Amino acid sequence: MRPPRGTKDKLPDEAFIKREICERIRRVFELYGYGEVETPAFEHLEVLVAKAGEEVVEQIYAFKDKAGRDLGLRFELTTPIARIVASKLDMPKPIRFYYIQPVWRYEEPQRGRLREFWQAGIELIGISDPAGDAEVIAVAYESIKSTGLDRFEIRVSHRAVVEDILLSAGIPKSRLPEALRVLDKLEKKGKEYVLSELSKLGASLEAVEKALAKLTTPGSELEVVSQAGREGLKRLETIQDILENSYNVKVTLDFGIVRGLGYYTGPVFEVKTPQAGEIGSIAGGGRYDDLISSLGGPQIPATGMAIGIERLIETLELEKRTPKVPPQFDVIVIPVGDSLEVLKYAVRVANVVRRESSLRTIVEYEAKSLSKTLERASKRGARFAIIVGEKEVSQGKVNVRNLEKWSEATIAVDDVVNLLASQ
Amino acid sequence: MRPPRGTKDKLPDEAFIKREICERIRRVFELYGYGEVETPAFEHLEVLVAKAGEEVVEQIYAFKDKAGRDLGLRFELTTPIARIVASKLDMPKPIRFYYIQPVWRYEEPQRGRLREFWQAGIELIGISDPAGDAEVIAVAYESIKSTGLDRFEIRVSHRAVVEDILLSAGIPKSRLPEALRVLDKLEKKGKEYVLSELSKLGASLEAVEKALAKLTTPGSELEVVSQAGREGLKRLETIQDILENSYNVKVTLDFGIVRGLGYYTGPVFEVKTPQAGEIGSIAGGGRYDDLISSLGGPQIPATGMAIGIERLIETLELEKRTPKVPPQFDVIVIPVGDSLEVLKYAVRVANVVRRESSLRTIVEYEAKSLSKTLERASKRGARFAIIVGEKEVSQGKVNVRNLEKWSEATIAVDDVVNLLASQ
Repeated sequence: MRPPRGTKDKLPDEAFIKREICERIRRVFELYGYGEVETPAFEHLEVLVAKAGEEVVEQIYAFKDKAGRDLGLRFELTTPIARIVASKLDMPKPIRFYYIQPVWRYEEPQRGRLREFWQAGIELIGISDPAGDAEVIAVAYESIKSTGLDRFEIRVSHRAVVEDILLSAGIPKSRLPEALRVLDKLEKKGKEYVLSELSKLGASLEAVEKALAKLTTPGSELEVVSQAGREGLKRLETIQDILENSYNVKVTLDFGIVRGLGYYTGPVFEVKTPQAGEIGSIAGGGRYDDLISSLGGPQIPATGMAIGIERLIETLELEKRTPKVPPQFDVIVIPVGDSLEVLKYAVRVANVVRRESSLRTIVEYEAKSLSKTLERASKRGARFAIIVGEKEVSQGKVNVRNLEKWSEATIAVDDVVNLLASQ
Repeated sequence: MRPPRGTKDKLPDEAFIKREICERIRRVFELYGYGEVETPAFEHLEVLVAKAGEEVVEQIYAFKDKAGRDLGLRFELTTPIARIVASKLDMPKPIRFYYIQPVWRYEEPQRGRLREFWQAGIELIGISDPAGDAEVIAVAYESIKSTGLDRFEIRVSHRAVVEDILLSAGIPKSRLPEALRVLDKLEKKGKEYVLSELSKLGASLEAVEKALAKLTTPGSELEVVSQAGREGLKRLETIQDILENSYNVKVTLDFGIVRGLGYYTGPVFEVKTPQAGEIGSIAGGGRYDDLISSLGGPQIPATGMAIGIERLIETLELEKRTPKVPPQFDVIVIPVGDSLEVLKYAVRVANVVRRESSLRTIVEYEAKSLSKTLERASKRGARFAIIVGEKEVSQGKVNVRNLEKWSEATIAVDDVVNLLASQ
């Protein structure tokens, strides 16, 4: 009996690492004044599909509830949060929300990206100033840094600039969404694939090749033709300025970055590591000024980002930067023999240790062999064993063994906590 | 646009309280040596229905994935954890696992129990000794206590004893599962309902009335007829002995407690508060020695419990014991005017505060009116505002206002952190 395809059980070591990573990220989010929100695992399907874009819509786990409602498991958190903001008009702006939650996408399971995976992200809602875009990128930077990763870079792009270049290459406006989806596959499927797919959308192969070179070559002369394209470039310049001079965060322009989701309207960015070819980007985000209004709310500018927790952890593992997992317990209390009185005494001793030392403590109720139990506890990282039998009960004492030093002492129960603290 | 019926968004205040409560419970679980596990949100449907019992099976959110697999959202965590143990035969026993996770049940939304709700629970696997049952009850007691609740009691029962009494009343063996489900409704639907439903199952109304009186009257002479019933009473006695004398935890026998889930085989218990009539029990659990083998694993004894987080929080609210919610940010930095240089200066100042004081700090990028911004920040609980304009930038200074004392000072950036720390 295995978990369903594309999902995975997290046993204690793995769950510990995930929680430790998420808690470090949470501390950064809260330092920047973001407040946590939780949304339901499933939403009305129409909310999810509103602006997701065709590719993601196909990946939704959709179902009907027993009243016939069309529901779907959330595939990200930006849309559910936009739904909240669209419906609560009296919420004072700007809004700073964060989340650390699982999401579900029915796609081919890959390294660091199963069908169930966790995202930690923020949304900054009600700010149109480029300072908002810069803040979101800075929070991504700081929170990833806080997990111990230092080899990563942030690549920034702008939808309007990319669209301008694709239009110049002869892609018709009506096919821009498709063209963006194709471009988003550049890293995964390679240049040949993107060239051939783009040229199928109505532009000559030569023009597309030239456009792609411009998009992916840093510092190339960009022929932005529209007002939106020019404003996009200007905004990117301001974002870079704020990030470099106020946050000390460097970003690279890379117009090959478009993001897979349909709702982005302005600057977009991704966080790339040397392992990105294998694992994909570990974080990304951008501005989505039309999403809230498309869900029935007013026009409210907004920007955000999400970190893929499993991808980040995979990368940390490759970089040998995962946090150290502590043993599951520090102290094991072992009653010897079958007497109920000895067992009750052992439980009392364990409770004294828990209450007065806060060392994590278990009682071994059905120990078969003392030496095997000691050996196994030591292997699992426990530091102390406390052994009690009839004799100890009658004398009010315990036998304490230090499993690291293999030393031992028989002492009064009242002295146990002091002894453990001194070793 | 609202979340689907039976679900709810948790905004920052509510999310904070939930997290705080869960973290207190987590600390107790870990103090007793339990390690966290996370299982997928959905399981193969056949795993979920294996031993759940008819009532809960009807409440499963079931669906097919795109490959036609029959899946269902988990409705509790014991079954998924039993699946893990059934498939990993080399895991050393006993196993101590805990979880803090959402579950889903399609039932009529009630106070403290929506269709999506959270459970925090433990499983102690591989121990048949009554000391294991006692440990699980003690952990329930200590973790609820740690959340600040003190008015609650623990009622303990045993399936074999209840079954004995129902059999004596003339209920046929084949209808026992139905009879247990009816009895489980005692608190919710009342005595008349239970009497009438039980008598429909093949016993006389008089016999059923007598049986019900025995089940629900503490200290009544119980006619246990089977070996299992006698052993059940003996086990309950030992559990009570260990709990009272080694954990200092009092429990009451109450054979009206049967638990709704189908997999219980021995002692069961529920945690009741004075609000139980309205909110239901806030925690419950019991022994399920056959669940792991029914999922294809070996016969492994096991016992566990779960706390209903939302029910616990509702109760804490009624008892005025919910934790205090801190403001979302401590410091607001306000750049005055439209200059990019002033804004960049403000962001730098905010970063100094974040880095050196760990006070949660936001920058107000698009402040319309200084006085309104200050007033709103104060209302939201912020302690300090830092105001910067052209003059402050040119002098390398900032204007700091204490929003609690309404005092102010213009000082050098280098002195900000010291000033904030001193107030």
